[in-house]
Amino acid sequence: MTKNIRSLFGQRVRQIRLSKNNMSQEKLAFECDLHRTYISDIERGTRNVSLDNIEKISKALEVEPKDLFDFTTID
Amino acid sequence: MTKNIRSLFGQRVRQIRLSKNNMSQEKLAFECDLHRTYISDIERGTRNVSLDNIEKISKALEVEPKDLFDFTTID
Repeated sequence: MTKNIRSLFGQRVRQIRLSKNNMSQEKLAFECDLHRTYISDIERGTRNVSLDNIEKISKALEVEPKDLFDFTTID
Repeated sequence: MTKNIRSLFGQRVRQIRLSKNNMSQEKLAFECDLHRTYISDIERGTRNVSLDNIEKISKALEVEPKDLFDFTTID
């Protein structure tokens, strides 16, 4: 069963977050002005994230939006 | 004023759609199982598109989701 985009996107957000000096979900949530539980849900692949929040997350992680969709290093 | 992600994403969808033998909005809408006016709104940058529809559009255009976020050739 190929993974769906919610799951892949969530894993990628988590991967990049941890690569930023082990940034916490709390810190990412604060930087994005989103709730921590929402970040947790995103990383667990349960949220149908929209463009505006994708933009907030990419800015907070200091990556380009397309980097959040690079699933090549997701197993 | 830097363009927001809705506008960039819309222009990129349009750019890729036209690169596919001038695919019409009707054909893309049909392939995505979305309404044509929704595709038109997306391309005009007025829709806060979510992951599930991003996945449908990338499959219909036969590109990777990350290609929809490559804004390097958007002026």
